[in-house]
Amino acid sequence: MKVAIMGFGVVGSGVAEVIAQNADHIRAHSLVDLSLSHILDIRDFPGSAFAPYMTKDVNDILSDDETKIVVETMGGVEPAFTFVSACLQKGKHVVTSNKELVAKKGDVLLALARANNVNFLFEAAVGGGIPIIRPLTICLAANRIREIAGILNGTTNFILSKMITDNMDFQTALRLAQEKGYAEKDPTADVEGIDACRKICILASLATGSHIYPDGILTEGITKLTKDDVAYAEAFGCVIKLIARAKTLENGRWCVTVSPALVPKTHMLAGVNDVFNACFVRGDMVGDVLLYGQGAGKLATASAVVADAIDCAQHSDKRRIYGWGEAKDGVLADPMEAPVRLFVRAKTSGKAADTAKLLSALSGCEVADSADGDLVFITPEAKEKDLRDALAPFDAASVIRLF
Amino acid sequence: MKVAIMGFGVVGSGVAEVIAQNADHIRAHSLVDLSLSHILDIRDFPGSAFAPYMTKDVNDILSDDETKIVVETMGGVEPAFTFVSACLQKGKHVVTSNKELVAKKGDVLLALARANNVNFLFEAAVGGGIPIIRPLTICLAANRIREIAGILNGTTNFILSKMITDNMDFQTALRLAQEKGYAEKDPTADVEGIDACRKICILASLATGSHIYPDGILTEGITKLTKDDVAYAEAFGCVIKLIARAKTLENGRWCVTVSPALVPKTHMLAGVNDVFNACFVRGDMVGDVLLYGQGAGKLATASAVVADAIDCAQHSDKRRIYGWGEAKDGVLADPMEAPVRLFVRAKTSGKAADTAKLLSALSGCEVADSADGDLVFITPEAKEKDLRDALAPFDAASVIRLF
Repeated sequence: MKVAIMGFGVVGSGVAEVIAQNADHIRAHSLVDLSLSHILDIRDFPGSAFAPYMTKDVNDILSDDETKIVVETMGGVEPAFTFVSACLQKGKHVVTSNKELVAKKGDVLLALARANNVNFLFEAAVGGGIPIIRPLTICLAANRIREIAGILNGTTNFILSKMITDNMDFQTALRLAQEKGYAEKDPTADVEGIDACRKICILASLATGSHIYPDGILTEGITKLTKDDVAYAEAFGCVIKLIARAKTLENGRWCVTVSPALVPKTHMLAGVNDVFNACFVRGDMVGDVLLYGQGAGKLATASAVVADAIDCAQHSDKRRIYGWGEAKDGVLADPMEAPVRLFVRAKTSGKAADTAKLLSALSGCEVADSADGDLVFITPEAKEKDLRDALAPFDAASVIRLF
Repeated sequence: MKVAIMGFGVVGSGVAEVIAQNADHIRAHSLVDLSLSHILDIRDFPGSAFAPYMTKDVNDILSDDETKIVVETMGGVEPAFTFVSACLQKGKHVVTSNKELVAKKGDVLLALARANNVNFLFEAAVGGGIPIIRPLTICLAANRIREIAGILNGTTNFILSKMITDNMDFQTALRLAQEKGYAEKDPTADVEGIDACRKICILASLATGSHIYPDGILTEGITKLTKDDVAYAEAFGCVIKLIARAKTLENGRWCVTVSPALVPKTHMLAGVNDVFNACFVRGDMVGDVLLYGQGAGKLATASAVVADAIDCAQHSDKRRIYGWGEAKDGVLADPMEAPVRLFVRAKTSGKAADTAKLLSALSGCEVADSADGDLVFITPEAKEKDLRDALAPFDAASVIRLF
């Protein structure tokens, strides 16, 4: 079974390596014979062991009838979308690790795959090498999914881990992440929660059956978190994590958010450190399930891509039945309508009267011991909009949701 | 798609409930229409909502050509083996939660499924509702599996959790587990590690491709663990868990064991408490992956059974390609040849000379502060046989492996 790769970056070159190194194992265990046909990239790789496969013309792949499976690891929407569409229309199975493509164009590409009776698989787009898409859609197929929540971005989890365990501030931890190659030179997509948002949109689309676009999803990053926030979270027995979450409210609508959250140390997600990712799923029958592992990395992510390619090869005449349809009205809730507890850190004059005034706006708060001039508390559970309204007159330095 | 259930016990009745409650959801999301045809049980259930489906004659199922999928939730080897064999020979897909059947007869039943071009699926046989079989075999198909280790028995994990957090002794914790319905009246299969052994044999068979029978696997239970062991483990920063483990040694052979082990608190498995299960998998490409959730329970386990039935219905004309073949020579290692560190608690006279004599048998031990008359230490890593030989002349009260 011939496989072409579009995009010879970190993941794409990893896919080539995994196929080269483990082809005999895959043949023995999965009864599938994978071999490379073409590698598409605009760059030259003269010294590479894979140089003989290189092409700069996508038509070499499109016109090769022996290439039944195409791996897309280019990243970004274009030209990936155009190339993937063309492959599907040519009756080729497509496997991708490109979360931006799936989050923004999944509905169109899944429809195209259905129309051409081929697979469009994307296990590697969420959680890198961690099995998430199949467990959610196949293993938990008998469940109504009630909630999905995860640490889906390794870069921010590394930064937060350093802030928590090594008392670093955000900028220092970010620089360390960049030195280690965990963060890009422009870290915006990671630290502002954009990457995590794309991933939770993919998972929420699978759970609801309706495409959920990243635009319009409440997305907060970690750039404003301070060492004080981390320390006060600790005082409440919590750690701060960037949590991507999709949960059903009582009215049946889905609340989808990405934001920092205080996670109690007793929760399994609190123990997920460094670049590791984890995704927690709640089904009505199975209860809580957690999937944990390396959420990124060349070979880990590539191994998920190759697993999808193996599945395509095993089911080349039969489409895998999962995915979603067009975006439907009435699926999403306004997150401000959801019940929540908020951690609040406010600067006060230090006078008891000021403190009393702030707390009187909300009854039943849990107040932490704090340094002079800081008032730190956790609100009781209420509709987020009502809590925000009550806090509006005061100058809160930090407002962070509780998980 | 008609489904028959053989065995209307806890899991079997859960399967009927999951299908009844979630059939519309399954139809909408998985495009599969599941409905019950027959329920086989030797008992009568006159008040049950499912009474109209009841039969005591397996031929009602075998002769019904509309019943394409048969769920086996009887437990035990016979008559399950005979009935399942007959179903496969009749060209029916079979789904089971019966770990004893799969661990002891998997090779025969998988061969029968292949010969008849039908599926024999058993996601629920390991880890109840936790996705384990598919993640291991499909999502990680591009990896050479190096190690699988897990807390695969909820009963013993509950007992150990009570010993650790509530300072109970084994007998008290066992009685509590029995009161809560987590342990059976005869708890032997759980507390002696037999249930966990069946599960690790299934996972090891999948990883190696060769049937690994429970007979002959080193299997130790938790009945001899004391409150002292738990307390001294704590002094080393560890908790004691019943670990089922299959790992490759340097010579490429697999060391498969079930025994209590000291797990460092920093490891994700240490945070798995009460009746929860978790399975950790190490692949050569993906690194470490952990799958966590409720390892038992009526609806959780039933949801995994129904997911397999959905997969059969979606792929009724195409066999899922995973499983294993006959047992092969040269796959298993002698666990005594594997490198290990041992936790040792020995009774001594309390005299320094006795202590020195015991420790001189092994150099480089890490010794814990202990009560008079107790000598507690962890050995350096060495071949287990050599460590046991060195310890043989002494009367060790406890010897527990380190994870």
